[in-house]
Amino acid sequence: MQRISNYISENKERFINELIQLLKIPSVSADPAYSKAMFSTSEAIKESLLQAGCDSVEICETKGYPIIFGEKIINPNLPTILVYGHYDVQPADPIELWDTPPFEPVIKKTNLHPDGAIFARGACDDKGQMYMHVKALEFMVKTNQLPCNVKFMIEGEEEVGSNNLALFVAENKEKLANDIILISDTGMIANDIPSITTGLRGLSYVEVEVTGPNRDLHSGLYGGAVANPITVLTKMIASLHDDDNHITIPGFYDKVEELPKEERAEMAKAPFNLNEYEKALDIESVYGEKGYTTNERNAIRPTLDVNGIWGGYIGEGAKTVIASKAYAKISMRLVPNQDWEEITALFTKHFMSIAPKGVTAKVTPHHGGQGYVTPINTIGYKAAAKAYETTFKKTPIPQRSGGSIPIVSLFEKELNSKTILMGFGLDSDAIHSPNEHFGIWNYLKGIETIPYFYKYFTEIKSNN
Amino acid sequence: MQRISNYISENKERFINELIQLLKIPSVSADPAYSKAMFSTSEAIKESLLQAGCDSVEICETKGYPIIFGEKIINPNLPTILVYGHYDVQPADPIELWDTPPFEPVIKKTNLHPDGAIFARGACDDKGQMYMHVKALEFMVKTNQLPCNVKFMIEGEEEVGSNNLALFVAENKEKLANDIILISDTGMIANDIPSITTGLRGLSYVEVEVTGPNRDLHSGLYGGAVANPITVLTKMIASLHDDDNHITIPGFYDKVEELPKEERAEMAKAPFNLNEYEKALDIESVYGEKGYTTNERNAIRPTLDVNGIWGGYIGEGAKTVIASKAYAKISMRLVPNQDWEEITALFTKHFMSIAPKGVTAKVTPHHGGQGYVTPINTIGYKAAAKAYETTFKKTPIPQRSGGSIPIVSLFEKELNSKTILMGFGLDSDAIHSPNEHFGIWNYLKGIETIPYFYKYFTEIKSNN
Repeated sequence: MQRISNYISENKERFINELIQLLKIPSVSADPAYSKAMFSTSEAIKESLLQAGCDSVEICETKGYPIIFGEKIINPNLPTILVYGHYDVQPADPIELWDTPPFEPVIKKTNLHPDGAIFARGACDDKGQMYMHVKALEFMVKTNQLPCNVKFMIEGEEEVGSNNLALFVAENKEKLANDIILISDTGMIANDIPSITTGLRGLSYVEVEVTGPNRDLHSGLYGGAVANPITVLTKMIASLHDDDNHITIPGFYDKVEELPKEERAEMAKAPFNLNEYEKALDIESVYGEKGYTTNERNAIRPTLDVNGIWGGYIGEGAKTVIASKAYAKISMRLVPNQDWEEITALFTKHFMSIAPKGVTAKVTPHHGGQGYVTPINTIGYKAAAKAYETTFKKTPIPQRSGGSIPIVSLFEKELNSKTILMGFGLDSDAIHSPNEHFGIWNYLKGIETIPYFYKYFTEIKSNN
Repeated sequence: MQRISNYISENKERFINELIQLLKIPSVSADPAYSKAMFSTSEAIKESLLQAGCDSVEICETKGYPIIFGEKIINPNLPTILVYGHYDVQPADPIELWDTPPFEPVIKKTNLHPDGAIFARGACDDKGQMYMHVKALEFMVKTNQLPCNVKFMIEGEEEVGSNNLALFVAENKEKLANDIILISDTGMIANDIPSITTGLRGLSYVEVEVTGPNRDLHSGLYGGAVANPITVLTKMIASLHDDDNHITIPGFYDKVEELPKEERAEMAKAPFNLNEYEKALDIESVYGEKGYTTNERNAIRPTLDVNGIWGGYIGEGAKTVIASKAYAKISMRLVPNQDWEEITALFTKHFMSIAPKGVTAKVTPHHGGQGYVTPINTIGYKAAAKAYETTFKKTPIPQRSGGSIPIVSLFEKELNSKTILMGFGLDSDAIHSPNEHFGIWNYLKGIETIPYFYKYFTEIKSNN
């Protein structure tokens, strides 16, 4: 890529100012009060894509907020990259914890961002990371270096579940046809330790209910004589893990992908300080499945967590009651090859089977999504790794994320293409939290790295 | 006792009407809105005790609602019976579930009360049962058959913890000196199966808190890698019972009174239909400690119940959070000889010891009270049994109650005297619930039986 560093140096101030203008629009999808801002954000993105060099940009209406679709097709025989991102942001609450107003971006230096970071809601998630792709396109088009076709699909409902996007994707398979999907909506380990997210966990989220007697009872008169639904629920939940913290649901691990040694070894290279991890959480010790490291436990292994539990008297003081019902919300993070619907069924069957006589159990599935993985031997991963090597002068570390982006597995299913997750934010950038920010160095490094991905992907793809 | 049946027949209407007048005053101690009614109830009781024949009646002020103290000392050499009762009632909520207004008493027939029952808040608990003693005194005084001295102590804060009564008792030991305390604030098995409550369970009530990470965490990024306080709490609670539903706290059973075979045999005579019990609660099966019957489990055995549990996200829908903290309210019902403070200490020590690394546990004692038992070979029990035999023509069944009346063990400790619990209400009388009622037959049978207790107690006591 010729002149990329120069181009960025020359246009740096403008790149930052354009992003700041975008961040000023409070595009909070969860709150209808910001509806107008949502639509004006979509207009602004359309405009920026046209200016960057897209041949055509549409604002596609949905039942919710519009999806912006733009493309530049230079040669149907060349590969096509589909860039996905989102222009909606999380609500700014709790607003009182922000040092500066969330929609009045300011640049401040931090320890991890000595060149400064832009503080604003959406700075990193995902306006800043999405806009890197717009500016990378601008560079490639303006300097006549776009090596392949490109499509943009930027949605406005990622923070509220992407329901309309799922429909849009299913109905526009041809329009969205591509060779690879490129997303910057994750993070990397550190500015001097580039990493590529190669896996996301799937999710099965259920609510359970245990019913004992048909009404709340006096614990003096009935205590010890009838099954107490709360006590029973604690026993049932406790039994879901064995002493080694393996999950005891029959069949749960049957399809779990065992990661190749090499990939575990690669992962283990990521710098990790257990003492600092524990200190940051104020815990004496980590806790988890025997045989795996902390970073493996929260990334390549399936887990089961209680996210909420309630039953009986939970007010001030004391009430001597045996509750009729007890409840819990339970979620399982799944690894590739575990099907969330199958796991939900296994959980349900098992949970019902362990209810002792004297209570009845009920399981209500909430929602779920498949896990996702980009093997490190794919063209996409290789091209991305080479791009990082070029601009960071370091080989990126493949990193499994414990989180879930259900839309990614939907893309694979509907569009039959892999996704590559090139995130340039840091875990400490406070996405979803007060004082979200995005390092200027990271923003510009993203703009610099993306064109190399286009270049290498096209080259490797053409040679295959 | 001469003429008791006649006296009751002749005065029946007046007895009922006097109680109805008392029930019309809404003496709800828990709600300050009824403060005026509380004071006028205390005045009404003073008046009724004077009319019944007490030589003197005082309204003793406390920091809360007054205690009425009355007495009739006929001969210092004769035994003295101290009658305890309370004039305050439970709140009427939920008021919409009452068929008739709670403070507008009406008489209606029911299956169990073919002669009619008075429906009103406090009809049974405890105005009706307390007023039986006033009318029994009236009979004995008017017919010159009072065989011993009598003292009345009627409080107005039983439904809110009797804190001021405890102080009053401690400060007035001489004034309250007695040979036996007589209370009607419990029930009996059925109108044709008289029973005497010989035991009450003690109580230790604690709140526990388990803290993991110092803040709520994203369950995708941290799930499986840190101890989840809710999951840990369920494991800790689950471990408090073994597979036989024995409590696992070391030392918990050390002082538990093992009931003599004879008393278990006596107890087992109480009619009990397990199928009906299960059907009434809509449960497939009862559940409890191995080796004991349902009626033993909730009366003579100590138990541990979770009364409330909470932690994490408990709203609508789903949130993938690992809570920083999880909580539970846990109560233990104790049997005689178990000291509630000792048990609280044992619980605390054990609970802290089973917290795994990665969390910290905290136990906060709420309150407690000692258990209580009246052995069936005491003078009080023998006199009461004989009184029931006289008026019911049946030997009463000694019955352990699973509930707790902490004040009873306080009486024993401070006044050094036993309590005899002669309850005439039925479990189905809906005390503390909407449509509380008290059978007219029961009310009059109580008035008839009480004087015989005075007679036999004085006789047996004099012969000892």
